[in-house]
Amino acid sequence: MKVGFIGLGNMGSAIAGNLIKARHNLTVYNRTRSRAEWFASLGASIAETPSEAAAGAEVLITMLADDAALESVIFAPGNAIQTLPAGAIHISMSTISVSLSRRLAAAHGERKQHYVAATVFGRPDVAAAGKLWVVAGGSSGPIERCQPLFDAIGQKTFIAGEEAQAANVIKLAGNFMITTVIESLAEAFAFNRKSGVEPHTFLDILTNSLFPSPVYQTYGNLIASDKFDPAGFKLPLGFKDNHLLLAAAEEAKVPMPMASLVHDRFVTALAQGLAESDWAAIASLSFENAGLRKVATR
Amino acid sequence: MKVGFIGLGNMGSAIAGNLIKARHNLTVYNRTRSRAEWFASLGASIAETPSEAAAGAEVLITMLADDAALESVIFAPGNAIQTLPAGAIHISMSTISVSLSRRLAAAHGERKQHYVAATVFGRPDVAAAGKLWVVAGGSSGPIERCQPLFDAIGQKTFIAGEEAQAANVIKLAGNFMITTVIESLAEAFAFNRKSGVEPHTFLDILTNSLFPSPVYQTYGNLIASDKFDPAGFKLPLGFKDNHLLLAAAEEAKVPMPMASLVHDRFVTALAQGLAESDWAAIASLSFENAGLRKVATR
Amino acid sequence: MKVGFIGLGNMGSAIAGNLIKARHNLTVYNRTRSRAEWFASLGASIAETPSEAAAGAEVLITMLADDAALESVIFAPGNAIQTLPAGAIHISMSTISVSLSRRLAAAHGERKQHYVAATVFGRPDVAAAGKLWVVAGGSSGPIERCQPLFDAIGQKTFIAGEEAQAANVIKLAGNFMITTVIESLAEAFAFNRKSGVEPHTFLDILTNSLFPSPVYQTYGNLIASDKFDPAGFKLPLGFKDNHLLLAAAEEAKVPMPMASLVHDRFVTALAQGLAESDWAAIASLSFENAGLRKVATR
Amino acid sequence: MKVGFIGLGNMGSAIAGNLIKARHNLTVYNRTRSRAEWFASLGASIAETPSEAAAGAEVLITMLADDAALESVIFAPGNAIQTLPAGAIHISMSTISVSLSRRLAAAHGERKQHYVAATVFGRPDVAAAGKLWVVAGGSSGPIERCQPLFDAIGQKTFIAGEEAQAANVIKLAGNFMITTVIESLAEAFAFNRKSGVEPHTFLDILTNSLFPSPVYQTYGNLIASDKFDPAGFKLPLGFKDNHLLLAAAEEAKVPMPMASLVHDRFVTALAQGLAESDWAAIASLSFENAGLRKVATR
Repeated sequence: MKVGFIGLGNMGSAIAGNLIKARHNLTVYNRTRSRAEWFASLGASIAETPSEAAAGAEVLITMLADDAALESVIFAPGNAIQTLPAGAIHISMSTISVSLSRRLAAAHGERKQHYVAATVFGRPDVAAAGKLWVVAGGSSGPIERCQPLFDAIGQKTFIAGEEAQAANVIKLAGNFMITTVIESLAEAFAFNRKSGVEPHTFLDILTNSLFPSPVYQTYGNLIASDKFDPAGFKLPLGFKDNHLLLAAAEEAKVPMPMASLVHDRFVTALAQGLAESDWAAIASLSFENAGLRKVATR
Repeated sequence: MKVGFIGLGNMGSAIAGNLIKARHNLTVYNRTRSRAEWFASLGASIAETPSEAAAGAEVLITMLADDAALESVIFAPGNAIQTLPAGAIHISMSTISVSLSRRLAAAHGERKQHYVAATVFGRPDVAAAGKLWVVAGGSSGPIERCQPLFDAIGQKTFIAGEEAQAANVIKLAGNFMITTVIESLAEAFAFNRKSGVEPHTFLDILTNSLFPSPVYQTYGNLIASDKFDPAGFKLPLGFKDNHLLLAAAEEAKVPMPMASLVHDRFVTALAQGLAESDWAAIASLSFENAGLRKVATR
Repeated sequence: MKVGFIGLGNMGSAIAGNLIKARHNLTVYNRTRSRAEWFASLGASIAETPSEAAAGAEVLITMLADDAALESVIFAPGNAIQTLPAGAIHISMSTISVSLSRRLAAAHGERKQHYVAATVFGRPDVAAAGKLWVVAGGSSGPIERCQPLFDAIGQKTFIAGEEAQAANVIKLAGNFMITTVIESLAEAFAFNRKSGVEPHTFLDILTNSLFPSPVYQTYGNLIASDKFDPAGFKLPLGFKDNHLLLAAAEEAKVPMPMASLVHDRFVTALAQGLAESDWAAIASLSFENAGLRKVATR
Repeated sequence: MKVGFIGLGNMGSAIAGNLIKARHNLTVYNRTRSRAEWFASLGASIAETPSEAAAGAEVLITMLADDAALESVIFAPGNAIQTLPAGAIHISMSTISVSLSRRLAAAHGERKQHYVAATVFGRPDVAAAGKLWVVAGGSSGPIERCQPLFDAIGQKTFIAGEEAQAANVIKLAGNFMITTVIESLAEAFAFNRKSGVEPHTFLDILTNSLFPSPVYQTYGNLIASDKFDPAGFKLPLGFKDNHLLLAAAEEAKVPMPMASLVHDRFVTALAQGLAESDWAAIASLSFENAGLRKVATR
């Protein structure tokens, strides 16, 4: 398919690479042009502006850092929404606010374009392996047309619902679930350690019985080893997602005390200078509070 | 093996049944004698007192409701600790306090008896199927001697450490992990529901991607269906375990804010009259707080 | 003094009334003109636009609902900041974000105007009695020139500091303190009630010993009586201030778990339909959680 | 009056001193005899055992550290409850559990003795000045007979109710209120400091407007100065009271999330080695979490 692709960060690069490997025809745009050049060597075209990436595309994929970045490439003067052909599909993969997703659905609808929110679960190494889980929201027709693209980047596609933003709701809720695992493992490990049980002993039991799950395995190992650098997913990004969740929950009038607790952890971690660490570094606060260690970066 | 068995509640009955099936020689005691009689029909002997169950046993297994019940059968005048032969092993399977477990280890040691704390994960149906996960703490020699018993009741045995109470630490920490899953699912489902996403849609995605775990599947289904009766594990029992955890964490000087949050949920649930429901019924509070429903039992 | 006055809500009206009584020369503007007309009958002039209220004023006072309302009257095209004379003072009394206050200081400074943030403590009846507490932030010269105005509306003026937004920081922190009193009284009353002690007995002891304070008296009486209508200060306004506090604390990297707890209370209260009640109605959640009552509005 | 007095710690000594000054006839007992000797020099008799202090007394006053200490002097073999004459009054001033107070009322009633729970608010310096606030629970007759004693030690006596333990409920709830003030001031000061406002500026405004209360003044100054040594009331004592409150609230089925939050703070503070500091030292955790300082004692 003829694909415009905007946003070549860690996740975007891995996804774009797999699309090229699957022989899709990509025109890539990245704010920092040097990252785009590498894809040119693989056969992609380089767009000089977002609108150039969208012009003539069957599908425009965006994978950007936040609401502001996405709004800028889509809505700013001379923007992609004006050059994307009628009938084409915008697949938004970024973790953005539920309200912006709702706004995009409306804006594309007015222009007879299609909008699919396709959020993904998986860290960059999973994305590179083409093993992401894709959660797609929107009308079923456009989603079906995108299936070859999803197949190229993920191991499975889930349907979130007819409302595109359902995919964003699920992404934010899923990331919330991960943060509660990080926090609960941190508290449990601190309790185990001060009670004479090695975290890895406890983790081994957990993941071979009640919780045979990649999240418990991956984060359990990071936290049991008390090692949060280099980051797979940086702490401020996790904080951003927690923020988007609390904003959406507030709008929907749903109190989420565990999300509030995690919010306080993120703020504390940032005050302790952990902005470069993995988001799992909020676990170090439980260790420190229990008197087990000083925060590493001091 | 010649086994004394004390405590024939839901879990104890399932475990004793599997031991008999594996052709161990059981002498059973239960406060309410009628429950013991059924096991007599399967070939077990009936003891009239705890001390009679312990007399002459190679292994004494206890599976009782709480610290008070266990202290009473072991330490009360004319008690089991006095009739259990030197060299015999007391396997304590109950979910009890870390401090009582430590005290039992010392008391049995003084009498040249062995003490193994062997806590189990799994609900009564899992116990009946002989598929429990057993976590055994204590000296390796006695644990090895108990292995045939563990094999008869469980699918896997994990070694907690040389200190028997390590098994109790792990059991309390494991149950804590389950409560955090219940609470996080509750909050996430409330958020999904008020944002237009069906809980079962979200759960299906979770358990087929990040969380392919029996805990997420079992409790996720209960909570997504908002159905907590009849109880698999009654709410006051879950509250008791939360209480034991907080007491042990307090003694070890480990703050556990998620455990405190769950504590508040349990107290609220009891104030709402949910004592007969499954412990997962704390999830109903998130639904009610979000304005989604009234608590069922009102 | 020649005063432009924008914003004639409950608080604004009470303040403007006292300024007229003190023989200041007011030109008033309100979005809903009818409220302005009453002040005309007391001798004030009516402005048809914000910029007309600012034109020729020695002092421009704004008392508006939120950031958006204040930004609109000050910064919108044909706005007050363009007509306010150089050397004149803008006194912002609204409870707004710390960041907007910082931005206003810069914008007025560029135009050689002065900016004073003068936040106030006190409910509408206190404002009507001219007994507000005024917290003024900004350069000392302009604050001194405003003192006759502050004297007309309040019983005391406190100096927050040379940075104008210090007054906003203090206002948000002060309102946070009030919310913690509301929540702590609610929990304590629930505990007293279920333990056989009348809330008024407990309150009487508190306010005649440790806490002889108007906040404990006023809110203690509301909460002990479990009566939150009609509202003195509506719940969504309290929520807004909690939101502003958390945003400012997040920006300053300060975790505030009590503020997060209060946030969850506000969200719950809104989900329960308490938007028309006094902000102290978050206390009803403690009563309901303890099984003492159903929320009134159901 | 003829008074037996048991427990000469900081508070007990100050109270006993004021009773002697008011010419009451004291027989004192203290586990560490040396403390009693000083009172002998003021004219008191010394008892060698608790029962000797109770024998022949019109009133027995106990002011002890905790439930265990009080149970031991009253109920242990050869104990005070056996020598206290029928018709005499036991005034329990200790901060003890609600359930022990209830048990004492019953035990004394069986022996035709009277039981008054008279808890006090005020730190040791307030006790020394005879300015305590006394909260008395029990039958009105005995309370009236005790009034001269209360007048000698306090500035005011409040009646809690006919059930003696009401005084303990109020004491625990009152101390809870103080802990919430400590925590809220800590969070507010951290926010002020990182936003450029001096804590003393904020405190001065608070205590001269909304919160003219000794608790805000005393603790506000301690916390604003970030100085928690030497202790006026040691942190483990505050933790004990928080523990008693949570136990009583749990029994009464009242969730108290703020008390849970304070519980977590106390556990953290003990893990940080702050056991010798004033209970207000939990405030240092807010400062540390915000990145403002390291905990002093490290």
